[in-house]
Amino acid sequence: MNPLTTEQQEVLMGAAFEQARIAETTGEVPIGAIIELDGEIIGRGHNLRETSQDATDHAEILAIKQACQAVGSWRLERARLFVTLEPCPMCAGAIINSRIAEVYFGAADPKAGAVGSLLNLLTDTRFNHQPAVFPQVMEPQAKALLQDFFRTIRAKQKQLKKTQSNG
Amino acid sequence: MNPLTTEQQEVLMGAAFEQARIAETTGEVPIGAIIELDGEIIGRGHNLRETSQDATDHAEILAIKQACQAVGSWRLERARLFVTLEPCPMCAGAIINSRIAEVYFGAADPKAGAVGSLLNLLTDTRFNHQPAVFPQVMEPQAKALLQDFFRTIRAKQKQLKKTQSNG
Repeated sequence: MNPLTTEQQEVLMGAAFEQARIAETTGEVPIGAIIELDGEIIGRGHNLRETSQDATDHAEILAIKQACQAVGSWRLERARLFVTLEPCPMCAGAIINSRIAEVYFGAADPKAGAVGSLLNLLTDTRFNHQPAVFPQVMEPQAKALLQDFFRTIRAKQKQLKKTQSNG
Repeated sequence: MNPLTTEQQEVLMGAAFEQARIAETTGEVPIGAIIELDGEIIGRGHNLRETSQDATDHAEILAIKQACQAVGSWRLERARLFVTLEPCPMCAGAIINSRIAEVYFGAADPKAGAVGSLLNLLTDTRFNHQPAVFPQVMEPQAKALLQDFFRTIRAKQKQLKKTQSNG
């Protein structure tokens, strides 16, 4: 795999951010992912859990499913995944299963992160695949996206409480 | 949750075996899963990876997706999952994400098992959910199902080689 320049990384992470913003507009926690292969984006996904009420509808899973369909193979061996938040165990497991070559993520997830925060499934050589991992790509923007979302949610809840106690 | 009798466990694991056999008839590695809620099977899945060429199409993921759709919720809080083989990291992660209450599995998976073999994601209290885990349910049959499958594959490969070297 040829190494990506910082600019190339930011363009691709930018596409993951676009996905996160789509999630946000539908009231979902803003998390987005894309998969790149040979210079093309072949899979896109954004967190869809509340809309679909499907526990597996994380951004990464949806992007991986789309990428598999695009190439007609469960092996995404030369592909790169870009995701705005550190993958959870399910998504890290899906990355192993699909043999993705490189994983770039934005913000760390201290509550459920399985790529360095709580454990690191992607560097565990007992599994049959270890992608290269690039953390902290556009980290400040990735953190701000989530912080702003939760700040807005809390403000709305506070306003609602105030309205209810005045009612 | 009321504890299940051995007989009840075997009936439900039997339904997971049925799923595994469906996988086998299509040339897939025979792995099957079902999800039970309030005495009813609300999700079924069998390994479909080669047929669909989708890296996420493991038996458990497909059963969880079907169960979420059946109840209209990503929370499967009083549900039980039965699967013929120990879940991999992706599927163990999906079990955490869907808040399944109890997990019963047949054979251990020394190569990719994330519920006791290589690590145990389901007893890790740093994640926000820990289901009760019941390993070794109908283990001899679960092991035999896989061993027979791989023995047949090897025999076919040997026969093919022999035919080719005689050709």
